[in-house]
Amino acid sequence: MKGTVTMDHGEGGAATARLIRELFLVHLGGPAVLEDAAEVEGSGRMAMTTDTFVVQPIQFPGGDIGRLSIAGTVNDLAVAGAEPRYITAGFVLEEGLELAVLETVVMSMAATAMEAGVKVVAGDTKVVGRGEADKLYINTTGLGALPPGRNLSSASCQPGDVVLVSGPVGDHGTAVMVEREGFEVKGDLKSDCQPLGDLVEVLLAAVPGTRCMRDPTRGGLATTLGEIASASEAGIVVQENLIPVRRPVKAVCDLLGLDPLYMACEGRLVAVVPAAGAADALVALRSHKRGTGAVQIGEVVEGPSGLVLETSAGGRRPLLALEGVQLPRIC
Amino acid sequence: MKGTVTMDHGEGGAATARLIRELFLVHLGGPAVLEDAAEVEGSGRMAMTTDTFVVQPIQFPGGDIGRLSIAGTVNDLAVAGAEPRYITAGFVLEEGLELAVLETVVMSMAATAMEAGVKVVAGDTKVVGRGEADKLYINTTGLGALPPGRNLSSASCQPGDVVLVSGPVGDHGTAVMVEREGFEVKGDLKSDCQPLGDLVEVLLAAVPGTRCMRDPTRGGLATTLGEIASASEAGIVVQENLIPVRRPVKAVCDLLGLDPLYMACEGRLVAVVPAAGAADALVALRSHKRGTGAVQIGEVVEGPSGLVLETSAGGRRPLLALEGVQLPRIC
Repeated sequence: MKGTVTMDHGEGGAATARLIRELFLVHLGGPAVLEDAAEVEGSGRMAMTTDTFVVQPIQFPGGDIGRLSIAGTVNDLAVAGAEPRYITAGFVLEEGLELAVLETVVMSMAATAMEAGVKVVAGDTKVVGRGEADKLYINTTGLGALPPGRNLSSASCQPGDVVLVSGPVGDHGTAVMVEREGFEVKGDLKSDCQPLGDLVEVLLAAVPGTRCMRDPTRGGLATTLGEIASASEAGIVVQENLIPVRRPVKAVCDLLGLDPLYMACEGRLVAVVPAAGAADALVALRSHKRGTGAVQIGEVVEGPSGLVLETSAGGRRPLLALEGVQLPRIC
Repeated sequence: MKGTVTMDHGEGGAATARLIRELFLVHLGGPAVLEDAAEVEGSGRMAMTTDTFVVQPIQFPGGDIGRLSIAGTVNDLAVAGAEPRYITAGFVLEEGLELAVLETVVMSMAATAMEAGVKVVAGDTKVVGRGEADKLYINTTGLGALPPGRNLSSASCQPGDVVLVSGPVGDHGTAVMVEREGFEVKGDLKSDCQPLGDLVEVLLAAVPGTRCMRDPTRGGLATTLGEIASASEAGIVVQENLIPVRRPVKAVCDLLGLDPLYMACEGRLVAVVPAAGAADALVALRSHKRGTGAVQIGEVVEGPSGLVLETSAGGRRPLLALEGVQLPRIC
């Protein structure tokens, strides 16, 4: 597509209708998008989640805001134990955005939705003036079906449980930061951004008694595990030398004084499982292409509540909730 | 609340958690907001809709962006024939926004959600830098239950059907524009912004055979009726002297060369019903406090497809789909 986004595209008239018809409907879906609401098929128990994406830059190694907006919301449903089904997309576009960029983002959303097995059923487009947004923001809201008996909760972890992660941490946050700042970095640094619904199903089939799952996005692994420890009123001890961090991620973080344990992931699964299920869980996760790097990184212990890092040197230090964490606009 | 929104509030750490706990949870709801996804109760047929609100200014006579964000999404579900049940809220906040303003908006959302009988079940907060948004934007996504047998469609209107509107048109768009531009206007000019779920149920109970309903937001009455005519491949003729427009709305529009028929409403229902149900529909609508001004304004006729205005003087002219309509950031 040629040209740029104009205020006309957001006002509900012929220009809006054309944008919907020529861009959104072509890539994202059926005629339901044109009605005020879309009909979806319900089930008894469902899960609903919402997330707005303001990542900057909107394109980065390993993904873009479109892929992120689908994967992020799919993953929030998946880690709650729900089968992701439907997604809505709400766009805020800045006047002057190139339509070709928007088209690329929408195509990326479509491809990721197909990969994740979800259907984009409704959308909305608003345009704001120059300097009233930064290119584009996307809200996605997801609806999933909760199978009977699924009762995952961050509050259900018990001493003796083990903590697993499906692969290296910190890739997304580090890749976005490096792209934004224009740093020259050696090595293959890219976002892990991917939908995890299928990986979650593999894990739950192997270990139905899984206590909880989370995707460690904003705030990274440390913030996520801190929240689980707090919800379960238990301690969590992780081993520094067991936590997988890619070499270029570690190098960049060391250089800038950042901690990879607080850097966002967008395609990693953190799971807490009973110790008896740990081996089965790891085999299951590693059998799937999205979980080949799965490892055990720690365990749940008797309180006091909180997250503790056991360093490679054998010392212990608490990993606290940070005030503002480290990086703005990472997702 | 004192102080302003800082980048820290958007980064998923302690500041974000505090904002959620002290503001969003206090007013909007249960603990579900803190988990990655909220559990909701499904039914066989459901309706889902999304809308992002970027209205400027965020407070205007008759409402604010908070009330608008709930009413707008509730109304999109209601006019599809669904009973609004659940809503998610995604915030984009500009650094520097006063927390007291955010608090007022959130309280307004809570009050409107209670008025509409919907539950806010999940939320998300992102913060962007100064000049990367204009104070705040809110996405709301709604989920409703579609009772068996409800099959409303803009494509189902037939020649002979009559067109009803639940009250005066153009109030919202005109009130927002006047507030934004700082015009001095005599008379009571305020937004009609309100949730319509209860009014819709009253109408459908009286006339189950209602063809379709719409809320004429962006693009106003003329755009909405044009879309219905197009979907049904029929003509719609409306009578200029039957369409209710408040005196101050007409005065402002005349002065500025705007057409009230293209000005947004946010609390009006447009319904097309079979002629045999028209009298019952009007009695039902007028019996409800949100529909006291309901009137018949026109009828569906044999094609060609399109909307025609029969003027007070007896002439006829087409009301076309406008390219960019008239006003940016009206909702």
